[in-house]
Amino acid sequence: MEKKIEKVEPRTLPGFMELLPNEQILFNKMKETIQKTYEQYGFLPLDTPIIEDAKVLLAKAGGETEKQVYRFSKGDNDLALRFDLTVPLAKYVSQYYNKLSFPFKRYQIGKVYRGEKPQRGRYREFYQCDVDIIGDGKLSILNDAEIPSIIYNTFKNLGFDEFTICINNRKILNGLFSSINLSDSSEEILRIIDKIEKIGSNEVKEQLLELVKDAKKVDIIMKFIKIEGDTESKLEQLDNLCIKDEIFLLGLKELKEVLKYIKLFNVPDNYYTVDLTIARGLDYYTGTVYETFLNKYRNLGSICSGGRYDNLAEFYTDKKLPGVGISIGLSRLFFQLEDNNIINADNETIADVMVVSIDNNYETEIKIATNLRNAGINVQTITEDMKLKNKLKYANKLKIKYLIIVGEDEIKAGKVTLKDMITGEQKLVKFEDIINNIKK
Amino acid sequence: MEKKIEKVEPRTLPGFMELLPNEQILFNKMKETIQKTYEQYGFLPLDTPIIEDAKVLLAKAGGETEKQVYRFSKGDNDLALRFDLTVPLAKYVSQYYNKLSFPFKRYQIGKVYRGEKPQRGRYREFYQCDVDIIGDGKLSILNDAEIPSIIYNTFKNLGFDEFTICINNRKILNGLFSSINLSDSSEEILRIIDKIEKIGSNEVKEQLLELVKDAKKVDIIMKFIKIEGDTESKLEQLDNLCIKDEIFLLGLKELKEVLKYIKLFNVPDNYYTVDLTIARGLDYYTGTVYETFLNKYRNLGSICSGGRYDNLAEFYTDKKLPGVGISIGLSRLFFQLEDNNIINADNETIADVMVVSIDNNYETEIKIATNLRNAGINVQTITEDMKLKNKLKYANKLKIKYLIIVGEDEIKAGKVTLKDMITGEQKLVKFEDIINNIKK
Repeated sequence: MEKKIEKVEPRTLPGFMELLPNEQILFNKMKETIQKTYEQYGFLPLDTPIIEDAKVLLAKAGGETEKQVYRFSKGDNDLALRFDLTVPLAKYVSQYYNKLSFPFKRYQIGKVYRGEKPQRGRYREFYQCDVDIIGDGKLSILNDAEIPSIIYNTFKNLGFDEFTICINNRKILNGLFSSINLSDSSEEILRIIDKIEKIGSNEVKEQLLELVKDAKKVDIIMKFIKIEGDTESKLEQLDNLCIKDEIFLLGLKELKEVLKYIKLFNVPDNYYTVDLTIARGLDYYTGTVYETFLNKYRNLGSICSGGRYDNLAEFYTDKKLPGVGISIGLSRLFFQLEDNNIINADNETIADVMVVSIDNNYETEIKIATNLRNAGINVQTITEDMKLKNKLKYANKLKIKYLIIVGEDEIKAGKVTLKDMITGEQKLVKFEDIINNIKK
Repeated sequence: MEKKIEKVEPRTLPGFMELLPNEQILFNKMKETIQKTYEQYGFLPLDTPIIEDAKVLLAKAGGETEKQVYRFSKGDNDLALRFDLTVPLAKYVSQYYNKLSFPFKRYQIGKVYRGEKPQRGRYREFYQCDVDIIGDGKLSILNDAEIPSIIYNTFKNLGFDEFTICINNRKILNGLFSSINLSDSSEEILRIIDKIEKIGSNEVKEQLLELVKDAKKVDIIMKFIKIEGDTESKLEQLDNLCIKDEIFLLGLKELKEVLKYIKLFNVPDNYYTVDLTIARGLDYYTGTVYETFLNKYRNLGSICSGGRYDNLAEFYTDKKLPGVGISIGLSRLFFQLEDNNIINADNETIADVMVVSIDNNYETEIKIATNLRNAGINVQTITEDMKLKNKLKYANKLKIKYLIIVGEDEIKAGKVTLKDMITGEQKLVKFEDIINNIKK
């Protein structure tokens, strides 16, 4: 007697990424590649909670961020879901300060939550893959040079060949503004400049004029952000501006050092460039800033960004904790790459080999599968009683590359049929030679 | 001019696990080992959202579970955090039914949320590591035999040598109750039997008597759950009970088949046993059930449990989707293992090698580090201007195993000092021999 059960329509919320298994395999491979690269630089893993005390998590937040936060209560607790991995890092470093070794290099790869209006390719739950290097009191500029090499190796390891890491220094911009008495407007000016990719140079000029109301000053800014040429030439033009502002000169010095040390890290010249228009809207960056673009898909926006900040955790501690870091928004990046056919998950598979019994006699099938697994090979079996045709169909759907077909006659001869599912080739192989044949 | 910023005390909510980096490294290694083992069996990865539509997620839930769920609204949405990985799997399989290949084998390793009263070692946010095999309409009993081999290999790969997988079949219990006209009380009886480890045999008998109010029937149940001996002997005693109930006989047949096929999967005899008292309180198990215990730490409770169910997704679809699966509660397990000194994270490290400059001259340091990284080695650098003594202290704290010390004199000779931090041995090594020496 079956109970009649009322059905609920199974659905996933809009703005929440949920992948098919083949896509998930590819996604996980990318995630793992990022992780392994971060680990090559000695970054330590963290995995902070997704739920935090709202008062702690929102110590700094305000405005747009705060509106997007998932905040709720359970019992007496005022809770919030993390909206980035930087605030939890600030909390963590302040909280465990005495137990950590500085410079503290950590990576964290995890989901964060923002209740944005869902749009195509914009997610409310998405992965961020962050590295940060946190100093205790001070942090050498060499770390700013290491970051581009991390970006370079990460995207190289992900299989990308044509991308550009754009580097700038916020002090150069801030010093420039100070030299023309526009420090108080620097935040707004930076915000306008930051939009140059989107709105174009003319619109930037107009918006600046509206803000600054001084054509001469706007001209200086425009002249500055239009500095072009190779790295050498840009640095020379910056020198030639003869700006005496202290902050400007410090920024220029830092930028030169970063560019000098990048070479030691073996980042090829054609993978990075100085881009004086990059400011990163966020107000906590205080020095070097980075953005990364795929050369052929600049329209995707920056796929990896970050920068240097003076004070990671000023809302939690009096300790001065400068840092430098970057973040990859993997969920959005994955969507964009798939959407633009830059990656394709069609042939992704977990198991390279499937063992199949012709006559639903599973003893030999399981034995062979067990041996292969013991040899470190991922093996799929199929132990349902069904026709061989359907078993092959199953293997095909799972994109299995090698099929080991087990039948009575072959078993008697101590052999199996090994079929290459891509070329269609098949041959008889002795039991004891299976592993070697697969490993080849 | 510094702004005066009011500090918020950085704290992590009670019931939320947050590890120090060395612990996190070990935790991640365990997580990865579980993942790799699951993948050896061809399980496909899933990564469903943590936030779901509350109506969808709670289609089945009720009682205690529902009270523990984190449920909240954002805008018009009634949302809930997943409290296990089974309900999201049921949702997923119903939703993408047409795009999946059956048997659908998936693993998912992720955080789930339950607002339990926080106790030592009980978490509100914790990892579950699940595998399930879902059939379309039917699913062969051989899958029930594969599961113990997954448990066996997982814990072997995690480094455990002494554990026991306890196997039972719910149909045997249910059939037994049916044969003595106690089917209607079977849920309650199972719940009582399930507590035998905790409350002992006498208390079980008393509680049964209170429920059943028939000493003869209780005697039959007690006789049954006290069946002892090796597997062969237990099966014989079950045969000898001469119970004619159809469900009982089906259960016994299934159990025998599972035990027969386990051998094919190469699970050694001393790693599994038939335990007729194991019922798994949850009402969705309908056949084989599993629990796993560390022989020397049986008090920790089951560290890996699961079973066979007839109908994964009856709240979402009319399709009959039987399945079998297991779950490892990794956060709790990690806590228990650390708490009992079964594992120790003290010497965990991400980078095996650190390159250190004696005189804060970083060119050679970075070059060597870059070369080592290109050779696939995880390398830490230290590019802060500080005394060598403090650099060595830093390396020590990070549990670095090999130190490469770079000084002016050595550079001139084309050599570095390679120091084994465990033995304290050190020797001069030529630049070109560094990689080989480290790899050794």
